[in-house]
Amino acid sequence: MKKTVLEELRENSAEYLSGEELSKKLGVSRTSIWKHIKKLKEEGYIIESSTKVGYKLIEAPDILYPKEIERLIDTEIVGKEIIFMESVDSTNNYAKMVAADSFIEGTLIIAEEQTLGKGRMGRGWISPKGKGIWVSIMLKPDMKPEQAMQITIIAAYAVAKAIKEVTNLEALIKWPNDIVVNGKKVCGILTEMGAEIDAINYLIVGIGINTNIDKISFTKRGLNTATSLKIEAGKTIDRKLLLSKIILNFEKLYLDLVRKLDITNIISSYKKLSITLGKDIRIIHNDEEQLGFAKDINNSGQLVVILKNGEEIEIVSGEVSVRGIYGYV
Amino acid sequence: MKKTVLEELRENSAEYLSGEELSKKLGVSRTSIWKHIKKLKEEGYIIESSTKVGYKLIEAPDILYPKEIERLIDTEIVGKEIIFMESVDSTNNYAKMVAADSFIEGTLIIAEEQTLGKGRMGRGWISPKGKGIWVSIMLKPDMKPEQAMQITIIAAYAVAKAIKEVTNLEALIKWPNDIVVNGKKVCGILTEMGAEIDAINYLIVGIGINTNIDKISFTKRGLNTATSLKIEAGKTIDRKLLLSKIILNFEKLYLDLVRKLDITNIISSYKKLSITLGKDIRIIHNDEEQLGFAKDINNSGQLVVILKNGEEIEIVSGEVSVRGIYGYV
Repeated sequence: MKKTVLEELRENSAEYLSGEELSKKLGVSRTSIWKHIKKLKEEGYIIESSTKVGYKLIEAPDILYPKEIERLIDTEIVGKEIIFMESVDSTNNYAKMVAADSFIEGTLIIAEEQTLGKGRMGRGWISPKGKGIWVSIMLKPDMKPEQAMQITIIAAYAVAKAIKEVTNLEALIKWPNDIVVNGKKVCGILTEMGAEIDAINYLIVGIGINTNIDKISFTKRGLNTATSLKIEAGKTIDRKLLLSKIILNFEKLYLDLVRKLDITNIISSYKKLSITLGKDIRIIHNDEEQLGFAKDINNSGQLVVILKNGEEIEIVSGEVSVRGIYGYV
Repeated sequence: MKKTVLEELRENSAEYLSGEELSKKLGVSRTSIWKHIKKLKEEGYIIESSTKVGYKLIEAPDILYPKEIERLIDTEIVGKEIIFMESVDSTNNYAKMVAADSFIEGTLIIAEEQTLGKGRMGRGWISPKGKGIWVSIMLKPDMKPEQAMQITIIAAYAVAKAIKEVTNLEALIKWPNDIVVNGKKVCGILTEMGAEIDAINYLIVGIGINTNIDKISFTKRGLNTATSLKIEAGKTIDRKLLLSKIILNFEKLYLDLVRKLDITNIISSYKKLSITLGKDIRIIHNDEEQLGFAKDINNSGQLVVILKNGEEIEIVSGEVSVRGIYGYV
């Protein structure tokens, strides 16, 4: 019901809607309308009220409320169910808790802030309130654990494409799933799963995007390989629009993938955005370092590498540094 | 402390120990001794008490209490930490809950009964009170998700070997991890993990062994491909001894594996107990059926199959029926 008041205001935001009109239209009392308006204002909506002419929506808050996202996406599964939180330790951890019970495929966990955001390999991820997109998508693909890499690949591509669409920045992908703008990291993706030997029970794609974080937040932490879209674009980015584009892009690729319409095209598009291919790289595994050349990405999403000794190997992950970015010269 | 009273009684079970002796030996009051004896009796220990001559341990209960198992194992990691429950929905589910927080590698979850025991692919597993071994071993191997199969392989071998040691029954392995005695299933293993793309965060090996279940429990449920060790051996099996042998066998193989001392020997031993190798098999995947011949098991634990059309494939899992067992003729 509250949503309907908001929708009416949104559709008529050029003019004032009187409490009486709203009351008639929605079939509820004027007191009820007033209560809903009050609630919306508490949530951060700026609504002009005048006893004479009624209500007018001036601005929606910069908060990723489900009602703000749902209107921008028309999807089959991703985001049909949204869990929104002002603050959480980590959206992936929250998603795993949800997954321990049962969930609807495509459930989206959104938090305005993460107090213990997680990166890969147990690292932290700064996630200040209202400054980024901190979300997890919950999936149940009918896949084996070793195929999970493909989901990570499409998530990276979906995000890079969305960033380009919304900000016009050249967003590239450092294999497997960092998004890099002007040589610095703006997004990390952490894929976690619960699985049996031969079947994934659930898969969680955690996406963290440094959207409107100011430079000072990075410099004061000594993070000189990270940046935000706002820093690079020189303006505040519409988080709602960006998140909705990510959801739309991801869903399309995900459904294509699970419906077996071949990953070749996706990999081909992904490769065009790769900052890793054709570069010298350094692979660190179990504290051992190997040097090589990034030759290709195969249809499993693995990086095909030619080592210094001429041997060709395929790597699933581990730490890969790319010459030319993140300070590796 | 309570354990020490039990140990004293156990070491001197040929004779009576007076309350005074125990009190002196353990440095506690006679009232305290009496309380401990009372507690042990409540747990099912049969202890003769006589005000004249003291206490004598007649029999320990047939319950897999940690104090009963710990004395039979001398391990580095497996079972150093034991969580015991009279009843639980599923030891694997419980282990996953524990894993969501943090745990010591090798933690063993033991339940006397599972109310919702789980088999592979979401199937159920009957787990009546005191009649089986229903346990989960919690591990943190430094492995990639696709290597988890190897752990399943060693668990199956550890169990088959332990069954042979304790019951002298010919326990064979239906690939990957059913244990079969006289053509019927006595044990299932359910391996579940939490993982990132390239690293296992935790791995849980759930082992369910139909130990002292009576024939009627299977026949009344129409389970004619299942049996118990008691049915096949014609006598009640010592569950404590069997569990301790499994732990000892498993730990040895697991430490060998993670310390990279090669899996070739283990696979070779495993193959000797395989009921699948050299047989015609039927593979069911996504409702499609393929016929083939089980040629080999490779060092990843995969089954190497020659299909009817001559093609050789390696399978991770899925449903494999073996001609000659479980009613496949």
